[in-house]
Amino acid sequence: MSSPVRIAISMGDPAGIGPEVTLKAITSPILSAAIAPILVGDAAVWRETADRLGLSLEFRPPRQAGRAGAVALVEASTLEAATRVPGWPRDAATAAACGEAAYAAILAAARLVQDGQAAALVTAPISKAHVAAAGHDIPGHTELLAALCGGVPVRMMMAGDRLRVVLATTHMALAEVPRRLTRELILETIMLTADSLHRHFALAAPRVAVAGLNPHAGEDGRFGDEEGRLIAPAVQGARQLGVNVEGPLAADGLFAQAVNGRYDAIVCMYHDQGLGPFKLLHFADGVNFTVGLPFIRTSPDHGTAFDLAGTGQADPSSMIAALRLAARLAPG
Amino acid sequence: MSSPVRIAISMGDPAGIGPEVTLKAITSPILSAAIAPILVGDAAVWRETADRLGLSLEFRPPRQAGRAGAVALVEASTLEAATRVPGWPRDAATAAACGEAAYAAILAAARLVQDGQAAALVTAPISKAHVAAAGHDIPGHTELLAALCGGVPVRMMMAGDRLRVVLATTHMALAEVPRRLTRELILETIMLTADSLHRHFALAAPRVAVAGLNPHAGEDGRFGDEEGRLIAPAVQGARQLGVNVEGPLAADGLFAQAVNGRYDAIVCMYHDQGLGPFKLLHFADGVNFTVGLPFIRTSPDHGTAFDLAGTGQADPSSMIAALRLAARLAPG
Repeated sequence: MSSPVRIAISMGDPAGIGPEVTLKAITSPILSAAIAPILVGDAAVWRETADRLGLSLEFRPPRQAGRAGAVALVEASTLEAATRVPGWPRDAATAAACGEAAYAAILAAARLVQDGQAAALVTAPISKAHVAAAGHDIPGHTELLAALCGGVPVRMMMAGDRLRVVLATTHMALAEVPRRLTRELILETIMLTADSLHRHFALAAPRVAVAGLNPHAGEDGRFGDEEGRLIAPAVQGARQLGVNVEGPLAADGLFAQAVNGRYDAIVCMYHDQGLGPFKLLHFADGVNFTVGLPFIRTSPDHGTAFDLAGTGQADPSSMIAALRLAARLAPG
Repeated sequence: MSSPVRIAISMGDPAGIGPEVTLKAITSPILSAAIAPILVGDAAVWRETADRLGLSLEFRPPRQAGRAGAVALVEASTLEAATRVPGWPRDAATAAACGEAAYAAILAAARLVQDGQAAALVTAPISKAHVAAAGHDIPGHTELLAALCGGVPVRMMMAGDRLRVVLATTHMALAEVPRRLTRELILETIMLTADSLHRHFALAAPRVAVAGLNPHAGEDGRFGDEEGRLIAPAVQGARQLGVNVEGPLAADGLFAQAVNGRYDAIVCMYHDQGLGPFKLLHFADGVNFTVGLPFIRTSPDHGTAFDLAGTGQADPSSMIAALRLAARLAPG
C-alpha cells in the first residue's frame, strides 16, 4: 500500500464553507488513508470549525503529517474572534480581514508545495470581492498561482469521471470573448491540454476536441469568422506539433461525443460553453484542475456559499473529489 | 382510445436523412397507432426511400389519412431521377433542386395545418445552403413559418423529458449576441415560454429560470452589464405580468437545477448556452418545438447528415420524439 499523499489545503474564505467542507472531506472514510492533509490558514478557524462539526482532531506541525490520526496545520494568519464568524461578513473591515486571511493561506500553502513539503495543493473557495477588499486585485486562484510560479501560462480544466473541459478564456464579459481570442491563445490552450492529459492523466495518445466559438461552429463562415481565422489555424498548428486534435466542431453536439468516449478533453472558447455542460454532469463532484503549473493544484468547483456557512449542511463531495484527484495526480 | 392525430410531415432535403427517419418513425410500433401521418414532398423520393428500407407502404390522398395501414401523401414537387440520389449532391444544380423541393414541402405542409387538414406539423431537416441556392434566403424553418403566419414572434424551444430550453437569440455570430439582446426581446422570450408551458405543456403555474449572459451572471456587474441593464428589468417586467420567473442566474449551475425539478424551462440568451447542456442530455431524442406559432410544429434536432443518407443507418429516435410530442401537444 502506498503511503498517503501530503496535500496542502488552503482554508479559503474563513466566513465561507471552505473550512467545513475541508474537515468533512479529510475525515471521510474513503479519503482518510489516502491523504496526509496539511491544513493552512487560521488555527482558530480550523479548531472552531472542528468543534462545530463535533470532530475531535489533533493538530500537528507539518513534518508530522501522515502519522496515524494526525492532521498537520500551518498557521498563515491570526484572525480576531469577531472576524471568525461563519456566514456573510457583517462589515467592510471583517470582509477585508477574511480576504487577507484567505490570501495569506494561498501563499503559505503554495510555498509548502514549492518547497517540497507537500506533493499537491488544494484550495478551498475564496471570495474575490473580499480578497480585493484586502488590497489584492486578483481574478482568481488560477492567475495568482501562475504569477507565484513566474507567470507561466495556465488554463482552467474542469475534470470529472465522465468529462474534462479546458477553457481558452474564463472570467470576462461574453462580449469580450471574441476580442480576446487569438490563434496563439487557442494553440497554447490545446498544447497545455494535450500535455496535461499525457503527463497527469497518463493518456498515451490523448484525443482533444476544440469547440467552435459560434453556433454550429459558424456553419462555414455564415455566422462569424473566428473558426476560419483563428480556431482552424490553431488546430492545424497543434496537429503539426503532433497533437491528435479535431476542430473547430459545433459545440452543442460535442459534449455527448466526449462522454461517449470519443474525446479525452474538450477545449472550449469561453466559460459557460464548457461549464454549462460540465456542471450538468458533475454538479456535486466536479474538480477544478489548473493546467500548466509546475505542481498539482485542484479545487472544488463551488464557491464560498456564505448563506450555508456555519449551518453544518455544506456538501463536501466536490472537496472530496478535488482531494482524490490531487492525490491521484501528485508525483509518487 | 383516441383517434390518431393527423400530422403533416415535410420531407426535408431529399438528399438528406429526412425521408428515411420519417418512414422509420411512422412505421415504428410505438407510434403507428398514435398518429395518422401525411407525408409531404416528392412522391418518388418517398417511394424510393420506402423501397430501400424494404417497407411496403400504401400511399393515399390526405383525406384517407388514418385509415388502417394507409399513409397519406401530398405531392409538393417532382424531382428528376438524377436529383433523387441520397447523399451529398454532386453539383450546384442538384443542390438547388433539392433546396427547392425541401422549400416547397414546407409550404405545402404548413398549408395543410393552416387549412385544418392536419392537426400539427413536423418538419424533417433541410439544408439552409440548398434552400438558399434555390433562391430562398431563410435563416431556418422557424423564421419561415413565422413569416407564413404573418410575422408572429416565435422562439425555438428544445424539449426533452428532462429539460426544456428556450433561446432568446439563435443563429448568429457569438459577437452579435450582446448587440442583439434587448430588454423587449428577453421579456418577449419569457412571456412566450411561460405561455407555452401553460397552454401546450399543461403546467398550471410554470416556473421559468432566466440565464445570465456573462459568466456567473456577471458577478454583480464585474463582467459585463447586460444582467443589470437588460435581463433583470425583463425578469421584473415578466413578474409584473404574473409570471413565476427567476433570474438572471449563473448559467453553469442552472441546468442541473432544472433537471432536478426546480424549473420547468430555462430561457437562454444564445444558442450554445442552451443547446450545449440540452444535447448532452437529449442527444438522440431532443425535439425542436416552435413557441409562438398558431399551430403545433416540432422537428428532430439533428441535421440532414448527408454522409449517412442512403445507408439505411440513420437513427429515427429524434423524429419519433418529434412526432410523439406533436401528437401530444396537438389540439384534440
